[in-house]
Amino acid sequence: MIVLGIDPGTASTGFGVVERAGSGLRALADGVIRTAAGAPLERRLSQIHARVGELLDLHRPDALAVEELYFGANARTAFAVGQARGVVLLAAGQRGVPCRSYTPQQVKGAVCGHGRADKPQVARMVTRLLGLPAVPAPDHASDALAVAICDVNQTPLLRAVTLVAAAAGAGAGVGGAR
Amino acid sequence: MIVLGIDPGTASTGFGVVERAGSGLRALADGVIRTAAGAPLERRLSQIHARVGELLDLHRPDALAVEELYFGANARTAFAVGQARGVVLLAAGQRGVPCRSYTPQQVKGAVCGHGRADKPQVARMVTRLLGLPAVPAPDHASDALAVAICDVNQTPLLRAVTLVAAAAGAGAGVGGAR
Repeated sequence: MIVLGIDPGTASTGFGVVERAGSGLRALADGVIRTAAGAPLERRLSQIHARVGELLDLHRPDALAVEELYFGANARTAFAVGQARGVVLLAAGQRGVPCRSYTPQQVKGAVCGHGRADKPQVARMVTRLLGLPAVPAPDHASDALAVAICDVNQTPLLRAVTLVAAAAGAGAGVGGAR
Repeated sequence: MIVLGIDPGTASTGFGVVERAGSGLRALADGVIRTAAGAPLERRLSQIHARVGELLDLHRPDALAVEELYFGANARTAFAVGQARGVVLLAAGQRGVPCRSYTPQQVKGAVCGHGRADKPQVARMVTRLLGLPAVPAPDHASDALAVAICDVNQTPLLRAVTLVAAAAGAGAGVGGAR
Protein backbone atom coordinates (compact mmCIF):
# COMPACT_ATOMS: atom_id res chain seq x y z
CA MET A 1 0.00 0.00 0.00
CA ILE A 2 1.36 3.40 -1.02
CA VAL A 3 0.11 6.78 0.28
CA LEU A 4 1.04 10.28 -0.87
CA GLY A 5 0.96 12.71 2.05
CA ILE A 6 0.72 16.41 1.25
CA ASP A 7 1.23 19.49 3.43
CA PRO A 8 -0.21 22.23 1.21
CA GLY A 9 0.94 25.84 1.01
CA THR A 10 1.17 28.42 -1.79
CA ALA A 11 4.88 29.12 -1.34
CA SER A 12 5.91 25.64 -0.31
CA THR A 13 3.93 22.39 -0.48
CA GLY A 14 5.48 19.40 1.29
CA PHE A 15 5.12 15.88 -0.07
CA GLY A 16 5.99 12.44 1.24
CA VAL A 17 5.36 9.04 -0.31
CA VAL A 18 5.13 6.17 2.19
CA GLU A 19 4.86 2.47 1.41
CA ARG A 20 3.79 -0.20 3.85
CA ALA A 21 5.38 -3.60 3.37
CA GLY A 22 4.21 -6.01 6.08
CA SER A 23 4.60 -4.20 9.39
CA GLY A 24 7.40 -1.99 8.09
CA LEU A 25 7.19 1.44 6.52
CA ARG A 26 9.38 2.90 3.81
CA ALA A 27 9.69 6.43 2.40
CA LEU A 28 9.74 6.30 -1.39
CA ALA A 29 10.16 10.05 -1.78
CA ASP A 30 9.85 13.30 0.12
CA GLY A 31 10.49 16.95 -0.52
CA VAL A 32 8.81 20.27 -1.24
CA ILE A 33 7.24 21.96 -4.23
CA ARG A 34 8.31 25.60 -4.17
CA THR A 35 6.72 28.37 -6.22
CA ALA A 36 8.12 31.80 -7.11
CA ALA A 37 7.00 34.49 -4.65
CA GLY A 38 6.56 37.11 -7.38
CA ALA A 39 4.46 34.94 -9.72
CA PRO A 40 0.68 35.46 -10.04
CA LEU A 41 -1.32 33.20 -7.71
CA GLU A 42 -2.97 31.33 -10.60
CA ARG A 43 0.50 30.47 -11.97
CA ARG A 44 1.70 29.23 -8.58
CA LEU A 45 -1.41 27.08 -8.16
CA SER A 46 -0.83 25.66 -11.65
CA GLN A 47 2.70 24.64 -10.65
CA ILE A 48 1.49 22.90 -7.48
CA HIS A 49 -1.27 21.13 -9.39
CA ALA A 50 1.13 19.96 -12.11
CA ARG A 51 3.80 18.69 -9.69
CA VAL A 52 1.31 16.83 -7.50
CA GLY A 53 -0.08 15.30 -10.70
CA GLU A 54 3.43 14.11 -11.63
CA LEU A 55 3.89 12.56 -8.17
CA LEU A 56 0.54 10.76 -8.50
CA ASP A 57 1.46 9.46 -11.98
CA LEU A 58 4.92 8.36 -10.85
CA HIS A 59 4.10 6.63 -7.57
CA ARG A 60 0.49 5.56 -8.29
CA PRO A 61 -0.54 5.80 -4.60
CA ASP A 62 -3.65 4.08 -3.25
CA ALA A 63 -4.66 7.31 -1.50
CA LEU A 64 -3.70 10.93 -0.95
CA ALA A 65 -3.64 12.12 2.67
CA VAL A 66 -3.84 15.71 3.94
CA GLU A 67 -4.35 17.39 7.28
CA GLU A 68 -7.53 19.12 8.33
CA LEU A 69 -7.39 22.76 9.28
CA TYR A 70 -5.81 23.10 12.72
CA PHE A 71 -7.87 24.61 15.48
CA GLY A 72 -6.92 28.24 16.03
CA ALA A 73 -5.88 28.97 12.43
CA ASN A 74 -6.72 32.50 11.36
CA ALA A 75 -8.99 33.18 8.39
CA ARG A 76 -6.27 34.63 6.11
CA THR A 77 -4.01 31.61 6.59
CA ALA A 78 -6.95 29.23 6.18
CA PHE A 79 -7.91 30.97 2.91
CA ALA A 80 -4.37 30.70 1.50
CA VAL A 81 -3.87 27.08 2.59
CA GLY A 82 -7.35 26.24 1.31
CA GLN A 83 -6.46 27.44 -2.20
CA ALA A 84 -3.35 25.24 -2.37
CA ARG A 85 -5.23 22.31 -0.81
CA GLY A 86 -8.00 22.69 -3.41
CA VAL A 87 -5.65 22.15 -6.36
CA VAL A 88 -3.92 19.24 -4.56
CA LEU A 89 -7.24 17.44 -3.99
CA LEU A 90 -8.24 18.25 -7.57
CA ALA A 91 -5.12 16.52 -8.96
CA ALA A 92 -6.13 13.38 -7.04
CA GLY A 93 -9.82 13.68 -7.94
CA GLN A 94 -8.97 13.93 -11.64
CA ARG A 95 -7.14 10.58 -11.38
CA GLY A 96 -9.73 8.84 -9.19
CA VAL A 97 -7.30 8.63 -6.25
CA PRO A 98 -9.27 8.77 -2.98
CA CYS A 99 -8.41 11.61 -0.58
CA ARG A 100 -8.47 11.23 3.18
CA SER A 101 -7.93 13.91 5.76
CA TYR A 102 -6.89 13.79 9.39
CA THR A 103 -6.84 16.23 12.26
CA PRO A 104 -3.40 17.28 13.54
CA GLN A 105 -4.22 15.28 16.71
CA GLN A 106 -4.86 12.13 14.67
CA VAL A 107 -1.56 12.57 12.85
CA LYS A 108 0.37 13.08 16.08
CA GLY A 109 -1.43 10.14 17.68
CA ALA A 110 -0.61 7.86 14.75
CA VAL A 111 3.05 8.87 14.64
CA CYS A 112 3.91 9.46 18.31
CA GLY A 113 1.21 7.53 20.18
CA HIS A 114 -0.39 10.64 21.69
CA GLY A 115 -2.08 13.71 20.24
CA ARG A 116 -0.07 16.41 22.00
CA ALA A 117 3.41 15.70 20.66
CA ASP A 118 5.37 18.75 19.51
CA LYS A 119 6.84 19.29 16.04
CA PRO A 120 10.39 18.02 16.82
CA GLN A 121 8.95 14.86 18.43
CA VAL A 122 6.84 14.18 15.32
CA ALA A 123 9.87 14.75 13.08
CA ARG A 124 12.01 12.38 15.15
CA MET A 125 9.34 9.65 15.11
CA VAL A 126 8.88 10.07 11.34
CA THR A 127 12.63 9.57 10.95
CA ARG A 128 12.59 6.45 13.12
CA LEU A 129 9.44 4.84 11.72
CA LEU A 130 10.77 5.23 8.18
CA GLY A 131 14.36 4.30 9.06
CA LEU A 132 15.70 7.51 7.56
CA PRO A 133 19.35 8.51 8.07
CA ALA A 134 18.35 12.04 9.20
CA VAL A 135 15.28 14.13 10.06
CA PRO A 136 13.59 15.09 6.76
CA ALA A 137 13.94 18.77 5.91
CA PRO A 138 12.26 21.14 5.55
CA ASP A 139 9.39 20.84 8.06
CA HIS A 140 6.83 20.62 5.23
CA ALA A 141 8.38 17.37 3.97
CA SER A 142 8.40 15.88 7.46
CA ASP A 143 4.78 16.94 8.02
CA ALA A 144 3.75 15.39 4.70
CA LEU A 145 5.44 12.09 5.63
CA ALA A 146 3.66 12.20 9.02
CA VAL A 147 0.19 12.47 7.46
CA ALA A 148 1.07 9.68 5.01
CA ILE A 149 2.15 7.47 7.93
CA CYS A 150 -1.12 8.32 9.68
CA ASP A 151 -3.11 7.10 6.69
CA VAL A 152 -1.01 3.97 6.13
CA ASN A 153 -1.36 3.13 9.82
CA GLN A 154 -5.01 3.99 10.15
CA THR A 155 -5.97 0.39 10.96
CA PRO A 156 -5.61 0.30 14.76
CA LEU A 157 -3.99 -3.15 14.82
CA LEU A 158 -1.43 -2.23 12.17
CA ARG A 159 -0.69 1.00 13.99
CA ALA A 160 -0.06 -0.87 17.24
CA VAL A 161 2.21 -3.33 15.45
CA THR A 162 4.25 -0.55 13.86
CA LEU A 163 4.60 1.39 17.10
CA VAL A 164 5.60 -1.74 19.02
CA ALA A 165 8.10 -2.64 16.29
CA ALA A 166 9.54 0.86 16.44
CA ALA A 167 9.80 0.71 20.22
CA ALA A 168 11.37 -2.76 20.21
CA GLY A 169 13.99 -1.70 17.65
CA ALA A 170 15.48 0.90 19.97
CA GLY A 171 14.54 -0.61 23.33
CA ALA A 172 13.41 2.86 24.36
CA GLY A 173 9.61 2.80 24.53
CA VAL A 174 7.34 4.34 21.94
CA GLY A 175 9.96 6.92 21.05
CA GLY A 176 12.46 4.29 19.87
CA ALA A 177 13.67 3.57 16.33
CA ARG A 178 13.22 0.33 14.43
CA MET B 1 -13.82 43.34 -23.34
CA ILE B 2 -15.26 40.26 -21.64
CA VAL B 3 -14.81 39.32 -17.97
CA LEU B 4 -15.83 36.13 -16.17
CA GLY B 5 -16.80 36.86 -12.56
CA ILE B 6 -16.82 33.96 -10.12
CA ASP B 7 -18.25 33.67 -6.60
CA PRO B 8 -16.63 30.42 -5.42
CA GLY B 9 -18.13 27.86 -3.05
CA THR B 10 -17.96 24.07 -2.74
CA ALA B 11 -21.72 23.50 -2.87
CA SER B 12 -22.53 26.35 -5.22
CA THR B 13 -20.20 28.50 -7.33
CA GLY B 14 -21.77 31.52 -8.98
CA PHE B 15 -20.64 32.73 -12.40
CA GLY B 16 -21.38 35.78 -14.51
CA VAL B 17 -19.97 36.79 -17.89
CA VAL B 18 -20.03 40.53 -18.59
CA GLU B 19 -19.12 42.27 -21.83
CA ARG B 20 -18.39 45.97 -22.20
CA ALA B 21 -19.36 47.48 -25.51
CA GLY B 22 -18.66 51.24 -25.51
CA SER B 23 -20.10 52.61 -22.27
CA GLY B 24 -22.72 49.89 -22.03
CA LEU B 25 -22.54 46.57 -20.25
CA ARG B 26 -24.12 43.29 -21.25
CA ALA B 27 -24.49 39.97 -19.42
CA LEU B 28 -23.55 37.11 -21.75
CA ALA B 29 -24.32 34.42 -19.17
CA ASP B 30 -24.91 33.90 -15.48
CA GLY B 31 -25.81 31.04 -13.21
CA VAL B 32 -24.42 28.62 -10.65
CA ILE B 33 -22.36 25.45 -10.70
CA ARG B 34 -23.85 23.09 -8.13
CA THR B 35 -22.14 20.00 -6.78
CA ALA B 36 -23.67 16.99 -5.00
CA ALA B 37 -23.57 17.34 -1.21
CA GLY B 38 -22.78 13.66 -0.69
CA ALA B 39 -19.90 13.47 -3.18
CA PRO B 40 -16.25 13.38 -2.01
CA LEU B 41 -14.65 16.83 -1.88
CA GLU B 42 -12.10 15.99 -4.60
CA ARG B 43 -14.98 15.01 -6.93
CA ARG B 44 -16.83 18.26 -6.20
CA LEU B 45 -13.69 20.33 -6.83
CA SER B 46 -13.19 18.44 -10.13
CA GLN B 47 -16.70 19.41 -11.21
CA ILE B 48 -16.14 23.08 -10.39
CA HIS B 49 -12.78 23.07 -12.18
CA ALA B 50 -14.25 21.40 -15.28
CA ARG B 51 -17.27 23.72 -15.52
CA VAL B 52 -15.20 26.88 -15.05
CA GLY B 53 -12.88 25.54 -17.75
CA GLU B 54 -15.85 25.13 -20.09
CA LEU B 55 -16.98 28.72 -19.39
CA LEU B 56 -13.46 30.00 -20.12
CA ASP B 57 -13.30 28.01 -23.38
CA LEU B 58 -16.76 29.12 -24.45
CA HIS B 59 -16.61 32.86 -23.67
CA ARG B 60 -12.83 33.43 -24.00
CA PRO B 61 -12.82 36.24 -21.39
CA ASP B 62 -9.97 38.76 -21.12
CA ALA B 63 -9.83 38.21 -17.37
CA LEU B 64 -11.33 36.25 -14.51
CA ALA B 65 -12.47 38.29 -11.49
CA VAL B 66 -13.04 37.06 -7.92
CA GLU B 67 -13.61 38.66 -4.55
CA GLU B 68 -11.02 38.77 -1.79
CA LEU B 69 -11.85 37.23 1.54
CA TYR B 70 -14.28 39.46 3.41
CA PHE B 71 -13.19 40.90 6.70
CA GLY B 72 -14.68 38.94 9.58
CA ALA B 73 -14.87 35.59 7.77
CA ASN B 74 -14.23 32.65 10.08
CA ALA B 75 -11.38 30.21 9.45
CA ARG B 76 -13.61 27.21 8.55
CA THR B 77 -15.52 29.20 5.92
CA ALA B 78 -12.29 30.73 4.60
CA PHE B 79 -10.76 27.25 4.27
CA ALA B 80 -13.76 25.87 2.36
CA VAL B 81 -14.08 28.92 0.06
CA GLY B 82 -10.29 28.88 -0.46
CA GLN B 83 -10.41 25.32 -1.80
CA ALA B 84 -13.07 26.17 -4.38
CA ARG B 85 -11.31 29.44 -5.26
CA GLY B 86 -8.05 27.55 -5.78
CA VAL B 87 -9.48 25.31 -8.52
CA VAL B 88 -11.23 28.30 -10.14
CA LEU B 89 -7.97 30.27 -10.36
CA LEU B 90 -6.21 27.14 -11.58
CA ALA B 91 -8.63 26.76 -14.50
CA ALA B 92 -7.76 30.33 -15.56
CA GLY B 93 -4.03 29.90 -14.92
CA GLN B 94 -3.93 26.78 -17.10
CA ARG B 95 -5.33 28.86 -19.98
CA GLY B 96 -3.22 31.95 -19.40
CA VAL B 97 -6.27 34.04 -18.46
CA PRO B 98 -5.22 36.73 -15.94
CA CYS B 99 -7.01 36.70 -12.57
CA ARG B 100 -7.86 39.85 -10.64
CA SER B 101 -9.37 40.10 -7.21
CA TYR B 102 -11.28 42.84 -5.45
CA THR B 103 -12.36 43.52 -1.91
CA PRO B 104 -16.10 43.41 -1.23
CA GLN B 105 -15.88 47.21 -0.71
CA GLN B 106 -14.37 47.69 -4.17
CA VAL B 107 -17.12 45.60 -5.73
CA LYS B 108 -19.86 47.53 -3.94
CA GLY B 109 -18.19 50.81 -4.81
CA ALA B 110 -17.94 49.87 -8.49
CA VAL B 111 -21.55 48.70 -8.71
CA CYS B 112 -23.38 51.06 -6.33
CA GLY B 113 -21.05 54.05 -6.05
CA HIS B 114 -20.26 53.46 -2.37
CA GLY B 115 -18.65 50.64 -0.41
CA ARG B 116 -21.34 50.08 2.19
CA ALA B 117 -24.25 49.04 -0.02
CA ASP B 118 -26.22 45.99 1.17
CA LYS B 119 -26.82 42.80 -0.82
CA PRO B 120 -30.27 43.76 -2.23
CA GLN B 121 -28.88 47.15 -3.38
CA VAL B 122 -26.01 45.44 -5.18
CA ALA B 123 -28.40 42.96 -6.81
CA ARG B 124 -30.69 45.78 -7.98
CA MET B 125 -27.79 47.79 -9.44
CA VAL B 126 -26.44 44.69 -11.19
CA THR B 127 -29.88 44.21 -12.76
CA ARG B 128 -30.01 47.85 -13.89
CA LEU B 129 -26.43 48.15 -15.14
CA LEU B 130 -26.85 45.03 -17.24
CA GLY B 131 -30.41 45.85 -18.37
CA LEU B 132 -31.70 42.52 -17.10
CA PRO B 133 -35.45 41.82 -16.96
CA ALA B 134 -35.23 40.61 -13.32
CA VAL B 135 -32.77 40.35 -10.43
CA PRO B 136 -30.41 37.44 -11.19
CA ALA B 137 -31.00 34.43 -8.92
CA PRO B 138 -29.57 32.88 -6.89
CA ASP B 139 -27.41 35.36 -4.93
CA HIS B 140 -24.22 33.64 -6.09
CA ALA B 141 -24.98 34.50 -9.73
CA SER B 142 -25.71 38.13 -8.85
CA ASP B 143 -22.49 38.35 -6.78
CA ALA B 144 -20.48 36.89 -9.66
CA LEU B 145 -21.94 39.45 -12.09
CA ALA B 146 -21.11 42.22 -9.58
CA VAL B 147 -17.42 41.29 -9.40
CA ALA B 148 -17.28 41.00 -13.21
CA ILE B 149 -18.80 44.52 -13.48
CA CYS B 150 -16.22 45.75 -10.97
CA ASP B 151 -13.40 44.46 -13.15
CA VAL B 152 -14.88 45.70 -16.43
CA ASN B 153 -15.38 49.11 -14.84
CA GLN B 154 -12.08 49.30 -13.06
CA THR B 155 -10.91 52.27 -15.13
CA PRO B 156 -12.24 55.22 -13.08
CA LEU B 157 -13.40 57.21 -16.12
CA LEU B 158 -15.27 54.26 -17.60
CA ARG B 159 -16.83 53.57 -14.24
CA ALA B 160 -18.06 57.14 -13.96
CA VAL B 161 -19.48 57.01 -17.48
CA THR B 162 -21.35 53.78 -16.75
CA LEU B 163 -22.77 55.04 -13.48
CA VAL B 164 -23.85 58.33 -15.05
CA ALA B 165 -25.40 56.46 -17.96
CA ALA B 166 -27.27 54.21 -15.54
CA ALA B 167 -28.50 57.18 -13.53
CA ALA B 168 -29.56 59.13 -16.63
CA GLY B 169 -31.52 56.16 -17.98
CA ALA B 170 -33.89 56.15 -14.99
CA GLY B 171 -33.67 59.80 -13.98
CA ALA B 172 -33.32 58.60 -10.39
CA GLY B 173 -29.72 59.21 -9.35
CA VAL B 174 -27.09 56.51 -9.11
CA GLY B 175 -29.74 53.92 -8.30
CA GLY B 176 -31.48 54.37 -11.67
CA ALA B 177 -31.62 51.92 -14.61
CA ARG B 178 -30.23 52.56 -18.07
